[in-house]
Amino acid sequence: MNPAVEPIAVVGPEEMATPLQDQGVTCIEVDWRPPRALDALKAFRMTPGLEAHRVAANQQAIDRVVRSRCRVIDVRSAGDVVPGLERGTLLHAGPPIDWMSASGPLQGALIGAVMLEGWALDRDGAARMLARGEIELAPCHERDAVGPMAGIISPSMPVMVVENVTFGNRSYSTLNEGLGKVLRYGANDDSVLAHLRWLCEAAAPLLGEALRHAEGIDLTAIIAQALHMGDELHNRNKAATSLFTRQIAGDVCQATETLGRDADEAAALFQYLAATDVFFLNLAMAACKACMDAAAGIPGSSLVTAMARNGTEFGIWLSGLSRSWFTAPAPAVEGLFFPGYGPEDANPDLGDSAITETAGLGAFALAAAPAIVEFVGGSVDLGRRTTEEMAELTLARHPTYQIPALGFVGVPVGIDAALVCRTGIAPVLDTGIAHKKAGIGQIGAGIVRVPIEPFEQAFEALAEMASAGTTG
Amino acid sequence: MNPAVEPIAVVGPEEMATPLQDQGVTCIEVDWRPPRALDALKAFRMTPGLEAHRVAANQQAIDRVVRSRCRVIDVRSAGDVVPGLERGTLLHAGPPIDWMSASGPLQGALIGAVMLEGWALDRDGAARMLARGEIELAPCHERDAVGPMAGIISPSMPVMVVENVTFGNRSYSTLNEGLGKVLRYGANDDSVLAHLRWLCEAAAPLLGEALRHAEGIDLTAIIAQALHMGDELHNRNKAATSLFTRQIAGDVCQATETLGRDADEAAALFQYLAATDVFFLNLAMAACKACMDAAAGIPGSSLVTAMARNGTEFGIWLSGLSRSWFTAPAPAVEGLFFPGYGPEDANPDLGDSAITETAGLGAFALAAAPAIVEFVGGSVDLGRRTTEEMAELTLARHPTYQIPALGFVGVPVGIDAALVCRTGIAPVLDTGIAHKKAGIGQIGAGIVRVPIEPFEQAFEALAEMASAGTTG
Repeated sequence: MNPAVEPIAVVGPEEMATPLQDQGVTCIEVDWRPPRALDALKAFRMTPGLEAHRVAANQQAIDRVVRSRCRVIDVRSAGDVVPGLERGTLLHAGPPIDWMSASGPLQGALIGAVMLEGWALDRDGAARMLARGEIELAPCHERDAVGPMAGIISPSMPVMVVENVTFGNRSYSTLNEGLGKVLRYGANDDSVLAHLRWLCEAAAPLLGEALRHAEGIDLTAIIAQALHMGDELHNRNKAATSLFTRQIAGDVCQATETLGRDADEAAALFQYLAATDVFFLNLAMAACKACMDAAAGIPGSSLVTAMARNGTEFGIWLSGLSRSWFTAPAPAVEGLFFPGYGPEDANPDLGDSAITETAGLGAFALAAAPAIVEFVGGSVDLGRRTTEEMAELTLARHPTYQIPALGFVGVPVGIDAALVCRTGIAPVLDTGIAHKKAGIGQIGAGIVRVPIEPFEQAFEALAEMASAGTTG
Repeated sequence: MNPAVEPIAVVGPEEMATPLQDQGVTCIEVDWRPPRALDALKAFRMTPGLEAHRVAANQQAIDRVVRSRCRVIDVRSAGDVVPGLERGTLLHAGPPIDWMSASGPLQGALIGAVMLEGWALDRDGAARMLARGEIELAPCHERDAVGPMAGIISPSMPVMVVENVTFGNRSYSTLNEGLGKVLRYGANDDSVLAHLRWLCEAAAPLLGEALRHAEGIDLTAIIAQALHMGDELHNRNKAATSLFTRQIAGDVCQATETLGRDADEAAALFQYLAATDVFFLNLAMAACKACMDAAAGIPGSSLVTAMARNGTEFGIWLSGLSRSWFTAPAPAVEGLFFPGYGPEDANPDLGDSAITETAGLGAFALAAAPAIVEFVGGSVDLGRRTTEEMAELTLARHPTYQIPALGFVGVPVGIDAALVCRTGIAPVLDTGIAHKKAGIGQIGAGIVRVPIEPFEQAFEALAEMASAGTTG
C-alpha cells in the first residue's frame, strides 16, 4: 500500500493494474468494455434525424408486436398452406445451410423426412439424394414457419395454422412429437416415422376439425395465463398445454362425431396431449413468429425479428433489413445433462424455438418459471436476474404478458440490436440439448448466451443503409 | 425528553406509556400479549411426561398427514356411499346447527336440497318441513364429507369418492356447481335445480365411469403440480382443474362409448370442466379431508384436524378429542366486493373449504398464488407474509407440497392448537363471500382471520383430559 497515492480506477485488461499494484497503489478494476459497433452507434448519433428515425421505426415495430393477438385456427398439410413448400423441398430450423455443413441431428432429421415422404427407398438412398443436392433445403423462417430443434417440415406433415388477428399474417408450425425418440432430435427409425404418420393421419384431422368447430383458440390469452402458472413457454409449457387441452376437449368430441371417427381415436389424441407437456411449444413458437413477422420490414428499425439456430450456425433478422440473415457459429449450451451424457456429447445449439425469446418469452420470462430454472441447473434467483438483464436489451414491457413474481410487471420484449451493441450483453435462450449424433435425441437442457457478432454485423448493415439513405 | 432517564420498555395498553411520556421519558412500546390458555400450557409444561407425550402424539399425527396420498376413484350417489346419509337427512358445512340458527344462504340451500329430493311440493313447504325439524341436519365433517359454502349434500346428489391410499380411509365431496346462481350460495330456483339434475344424470355417470376406467387419478400429484402453477387450491384451482381435465379426457371418451352416450354429452361435460376453474376445489377439499381424518383420534395430539364454518359459527376439531366441536361466532370476511355490494351485504364466513388451510393449502400456501392475492385485494408480498406467519402455528413443512417462489420450501402444514395459544396468532383463510340473503350468491372474495377462542377452549379441554389421564 502506498498511502500517499489515491486509489486509481483501472479500465481494461487486468495486466494494466499489475505495475501499479507493484508500486503499492490501490487499484479499483472496472469491468467496462467499449460498445460494439461503435461506428454504427456514432453514425446514428451524429447524423441529424437518423437516430430519431430509428427510434420512431422501433416504436412502430414494437407497437405491432405487442398489439398482435394470435389464434390457432386450423391444422392442414404443410404442402397445402406453407408458401412455396413444393414436393422435393424440406424446411429446416435456423439460417440457410447445406447438407455438408449440417450437424448430426439435422442430417438425421432430413433423412427421416425424405423417408416419410417416400422420396427414397431407404436411409442410405435418402442421404445420397440429400448429398447430391436433389432436395431443396430452405429455412422455415423464410416460409412463415418455425420448427423446434431440427425443425423439419415436409409437404405431407400437418401444420397448425396460426393467424395474427390484428395484422392478418399467418404462421405455421408442426405438431410436437413429444419426448423420447423423435425426428426433431435427429432420430429417424421406423417407430419415429410411424408416430409421424399417426400425427398426420389420426391426430391432425381430429384436431383440425376441432379447431374449426371452436372457430379457433386464442393463443395470446393462453400464453398470458400460462405465464401466471409457471410456464416460460419455451422449456416449460405444461400450463399452456393443459389450458389448451381443457379448452378444446369439447370440440374434439364434436369433431370425432363429425368425422365419423370412433372413441378410441379421440382417446388416443387426448392421451398424446396428456403425455406431451411440450405440445404447446409449437403453438407458442408459431404465435411468436406471427407477432414478429408483423413487425418485419419497417425501414430503419433495429428490432430483432428472428433468432434461430440450425445446429451449425446461429442467425438473426432485423426488422429494417427484412429477411437478411446475419450469422455466427452456433454456441455450446450450458446446462444439466441426463445421466450418462456430458458436454462432449452435445450438439451446438439448434432450433427455431429462440423465436420465443425474440418475442419476450423463454429465458426473457425466466422469472415466471422457477421450476424450469431448477431443471436447467440454476436457482430461483437466476430467473429473476435473467429477466432483469434481458430488460436492458429490449424496447418494451409487454402489456399482456406479465410475471406475477415480479409484481405483474410485463416481460421484456423486443430486442434492439443497438442496445445489444451498446451494452455488450448478448441475449440468453432456454434450450434443450441434442446429442451431436443423429438419432440419440435429447441429452439435457440448459441456457445459452448467443454470439453477439450477428447483432453487431446487422446493426452495422442497418447503419450503412440508413446513412446511404440520408446522404444518397 | 428526559435525558437523565434511560428509555423504558412498556408492555400492555398504550395508556401505560402516556404518564411516562408526559414526564419526558422515552417509551418503547412492545406489542406483547400473554399466551392464551396459559393454565393449559402450564399444565403440559409442569406435569412430568405430559408435554413429551403431546409432542410425540403430534409427531405421529403430522406424520400421518404428510404421508397420506389421495386418489379420486369414483363418482357415486351420496346416499349409496356416504355413511349414514338416509332419506330425510341433509348434510351441511361447518359445525352442527339447527334451522332457526341457520343464515340466509344456508337456509336457501337447504330448501333447494329438499326440493331436489322431492320431499316437498314447493319451497314454502320445504321451509316448513325444515322449521318443524322433519329433516335431520348433520355436519358433512361427521360423515367423512366436505362441502364448499353451504356445503349441502343430499342422498341423490353425486359425490366424488376419494381414497387415502396410505391409510385406507375415504372422503366424499359433491361436484362443484361452477359460478353464478348456485345452491352452495343459497340459490334454489328452477335453473339451479336443473343444473344439479344435469350434474346428477349426465356429468356424474360419465365422470364416474371415466375414473373407474382410469383406475383413479392421483390428487396428491395434481396438488403438488398445481402449487407450482399459481394455485393455492382454495380460491384458485385453475391449474389443478386443467391438469385433471387433461389427464381424464381420454378416459371420458372411452366412458362415453362404454355407457352408449353420444358425443354431445361428452362435449357438455368438457364444456362444464372448461368453464369451471373452481371444479378441482371440491377434490382438493376431499383430499385434505382424507389426509386430516387419517390423523384424527390420536390421544393427546393438539393437531387441528378440521376447521369449518356454517355461516353462523366457526368450529374446529383436535386430533386428541376426535369429533368434539369447539366453536365461536363465524367471523366477517375482509376482501374485495363485486360492484354494487359491500360489507353490509356479506354473510359471516361459510363453508368446509377451510379444510384446505387445515391441511396446509389455501391461505397457508398463499405465497404460491400471487394472482389470487391481487384478487382478494392484497399485494404479492401479502402472500409471502401470510405463508410465513402461518408457519408459526404449524408442525411441519410439507415434503411434497412446495412453493417455487420460496425456493421450493414446503407449505406450512398441521396447525398445533398449542402454538395458536402460545403465539396468540389465529389461522387465516382464503374464502369467497356470500350475500347474507339466500339466492343472491357470491358477492366477493377475501381473506379472514378465524376466532382464536375455539383453539383456546379445545386446548384447555385437551389439557384437562391429559391431566385427568395422568392423575386418575
